[in-house]
Amino acid sequence: MSPEPFEYRFSIRLHDTDAAGVLFFAHLLRYAHDAYEAFMEQAGFSLAGLIAGAGPQLPLVHAEADFLAPLRHGQQGRIRLRLVRLGSSSFTLEYTFLGSDGNIRARARTVHVALAAAGGKSVPLPEALRRRLAALET
Amino acid sequence: MSPEPFEYRFSIRLHDTDAAGVLFFAHLLRYAHDAYEAFMEQAGFSLAGLIAGAGPQLPLVHAEADFLAPLRHGQQGRIRLRLVRLGSSSFTLEYTFLGSDGNIRARARTVHVALAAAGGKSVPLPEALRRRLAALET
Amino acid sequence: MSPEPFEYRFSIRLHDTDAAGVLFFAHLLRYAHDAYEAFMEQAGFSLAGLIAGAGPQLPLVHAEADFLAPLRHGQQGRIRLRLVRLGSSSFTLEYTFLGSDGNIRARARTVHVALAAAGGKSVPLPEALRRRLAALET
Amino acid sequence: MSPEPFEYRFSIRLHDTDAAGVLFFAHLLRYAHDAYEAFMEQAGFSLAGLIAGAGPQLPLVHAEADFLAPLRHGQQGRIRLRLVRLGSSSFTLEYTFLGSDGNIRARARTVHVALAAAGGKSVPLPEALRRRLAALET
Repeated sequence: MSPEPFEYRFSIRLHDTDAAGVLFFAHLLRYAHDAYEAFMEQAGFSLAGLIAGAGPQLPLVHAEADFLAPLRHGQQGRIRLRLVRLGSSSFTLEYTFLGSDGNIRARARTVHVALAAAGGKSVPLPEALRRRLAALET
Repeated sequence: MSPEPFEYRFSIRLHDTDAAGVLFFAHLLRYAHDAYEAFMEQAGFSLAGLIAGAGPQLPLVHAEADFLAPLRHGQQGRIRLRLVRLGSSSFTLEYTFLGSDGNIRARARTVHVALAAAGGKSVPLPEALRRRLAALET
Repeated sequence: MSPEPFEYRFSIRLHDTDAAGVLFFAHLLRYAHDAYEAFMEQAGFSLAGLIAGAGPQLPLVHAEADFLAPLRHGQQGRIRLRLVRLGSSSFTLEYTFLGSDGNIRARARTVHVALAAAGGKSVPLPEALRRRLAALET
Repeated sequence: MSPEPFEYRFSIRLHDTDAAGVLFFAHLLRYAHDAYEAFMEQAGFSLAGLIAGAGPQLPLVHAEADFLAPLRHGQQGRIRLRLVRLGSSSFTLEYTFLGSDGNIRARARTVHVALAAAGGKSVPLPEALRRRLAALET
């Protein structure tokens, strides 16, 4: 089975930019998380449902980003999602930010750990989510 | 000529919500502005271009919103844009926020004034923008 | 008893500004809400406590702002809180934004309604909150 | 000369939290940047001045954060700034987020590179900034 690409489109809106005229760095991670939410929704694990207790919590324990070229107001782009690591109770996703010209502007990563809904103990990832993650591009 | 409807779709993402589980009120105005930006782009007046000096500045001088029913995490909705007032150098837009069930969740208004690019003097709205605004639903 | 002034200090940070070099309008309401939170905390009604159920919910049903002069990156300012209206189950606050030169840059208002923790019915404001609101400048 | 500690205080406001009741992860980096801005101001290099061209641009080329324990609505905390690396034209700062109980909640790092105001070429850090960075705790 060939891996499934997952892409998320976005536009740099005025409120995303700062006085330097470009995307404020922390907002890039906000867009990465939007892509993650869209993927999870499509995978049948809406974050709203998980937070309401319909499954494990998946808190983000690490995030990072490399900024290669500025994203400017009005630009449109897309985020390609890749699976970097799939553990028994955690996973790492990578987000490649491409401008409308196809050039890479930034890369981000997030690490998520599955915890029992009630508290701090880590639990195995649900099998259905595992399969969807494993099917992503790597 | 019948008026042109303009709609903008959005999803309530995790970062839009607060500890009360609903859209943080000021972020509703951020979405209203996203709808405004999308309209202006379609009208040929990208805000990025205007800010860079390709036309008058259109600062927002007033904003308001009425919150009728909460917008919750994961919900999808759309914003309908209407023209409320078209003056010689200013205009007022109304944003109706509809949930996926079609019920109204909120209404917002923004008032914009055209200023000469260089400074504080108000100037007439560009004729092409005037026509596009006049064609909106009222 | 003379009315109690309540002031809240803030600085315009890079992420508050947009590509036009000034505070993005919706973030002004975020600062107004910060001032409201600080006031409520001092009044013994922390929003975190209220949201957790220790008292009525106080959802914001209306917000508005007038933008008189831009607030620029790096500027420091303060917000003066005034009581505009005190009803049996609702109240209206006004926020005057002053630059470091003491000139008014913006004004905002928020309207809050007390609801029973569990649902939609409006309830009287707690007497202790009522007293603190009544003591504010008008 | 003993190193100078630099601390920045913050409160978790309602708009910082999300439907899970805790600080939304990307907003932690916004607070890290607020601490950076406050440090730069004290060092005589206000970001507003730098962006306006009074010195090199210092774009952020990398950011990362580890989330150890949640920061909840209403909590107060402080950020301790440390110098991790000081190169000829770049530097790395670390931000330790402490709760009001003194326990560490998160750590973040940002990497900044000095570029000539006009464009992409890296330039040496201004000597005065270098000295202030070198004086920070390591």
